[in-house]
Amino acid sequence: MGILYGIGVGPGDPMLMTLKAVEAIKKCDIIAIPSRKSVAYEIAVGAVPEIEEKPKLYLDMPMIKDVDLIKKKHLEVANIIIENLDKNIGFLTLGDPSIYSTFSYINDIVSKDYETVVIPGITSFSGAAALSNEALVQWDESLYVIPSIHDDSLVLRRGTNVFMKSGKSLSELREKLASVEYKSIKIIEKCGMEEEKVYEDFDSLPEKLSYFTLVVIKV
Amino acid sequence: MGILYGIGVGPGDPMLMTLKAVEAIKKCDIIAIPSRKSVAYEIAVGAVPEIEEKPKLYLDMPMIKDVDLIKKKHLEVANIIIENLDKNIGFLTLGDPSIYSTFSYINDIVSKDYETVVIPGITSFSGAAALSNEALVQWDESLYVIPSIHDDSLVLRRGTNVFMKSGKSLSELREKLASVEYKSIKIIEKCGMEEEKVYEDFDSLPEKLSYFTLVVIKV
Repeated sequence: MGILYGIGVGPGDPMLMTLKAVEAIKKCDIIAIPSRKSVAYEIAVGAVPEIEEKPKLYLDMPMIKDVDLIKKKHLEVANIIIENLDKNIGFLTLGDPSIYSTFSYINDIVSKDYETVVIPGITSFSGAAALSNEALVQWDESLYVIPSIHDDSLVLRRGTNVFMKSGKSLSELREKLASVEYKSIKIIEKCGMEEEKVYEDFDSLPEKLSYFTLVVIKV
Repeated sequence: MGILYGIGVGPGDPMLMTLKAVEAIKKCDIIAIPSRKSVAYEIAVGAVPEIEEKPKLYLDMPMIKDVDLIKKKHLEVANIIIENLDKNIGFLTLGDPSIYSTFSYINDIVSKDYETVVIPGITSFSGAAALSNEALVQWDESLYVIPSIHDDSLVLRRGTNVFMKSGKSLSELREKLASVEYKSIKIIEKCGMEEEKVYEDFDSLPEKLSYFTLVVIKV
């Protein structure tokens, strides 16, 4: 049997891939990616061009919020992977596979009966902090990483608040922040990618922002 | 003038260094490390053996809690770095330079007048999650990263609570947890290093734990 590798490719810059991720991609026989247009794949190509020669397993994983439907989809995808697990499969994920990745759900199913290996990646918030040349947390500050998937998650705490994948919920966040005091805000779109943009207030934001938008608020 | 690079070497495994970290170390003329026995340096040697040939800048950075004394020390260290900044200096940090690293204080001073570059690293919590093959956060879960430096930081929230550098405060945490319900606990000592150990309850803990101890509690 082969091994399923969950490979974090980091936030955008191919040079932010780890030596271990590069090594794993090289030894995998099949590359699993969500679709023909995969950001994670584009990053990997930048560091390991030979990935283009490898057979691909395109997995249909739509961005939906219906929990039952998602579970059904994950089971389908896990079964497709298991069917192909006579070879080593490298499943690419943006950022780190342990933090809000689709891979983690597939891994929960596949790892029950088959060998899987997780290769960590640079998170988008580490990447964003490095690019802005400002520490995320120092000394006794706490770091809160909150997925902006649910309305009730928009709570600010003393320390550094990172809202992940917040492209759609920015107007809500803006409303909430109108009555809250905070030290600084940074809105980072497509962190580490070529089209990266950083905004330091809400007024300068364009009408539409990418799904890959990160908000860092220091309180 | 040279550039000061803050280089994250990740949690322990040299293969978890990024391509960018390896490249930066290779092009730096001087390697800055806290002392002759540096964990970050040992990790870097594993991936870039030629680092041994480079001149070293040993910086005296004691682990103290007195804020005034620490500030004075940071200023001293920053000045030593600035004095040597006619060349490129690579300052190695364990994990990620943006999350509780000494580099971040030095960078706050040096970057005011000189060019500095931060190269992100794999955090200890991403490393620990990968090794335990269990996602840190999925779907609507939040991630809380709390430094166990102050007694009042021992608060548990719904989601995943990561207590950093908690070797010394474990007995307090244990006391606190006696009256709290939680789903799971993992105590990871020296994550990703050769001596790594994982404990799943307090009873199996040895009397003394390393400073590099991470506690992951799911609530």
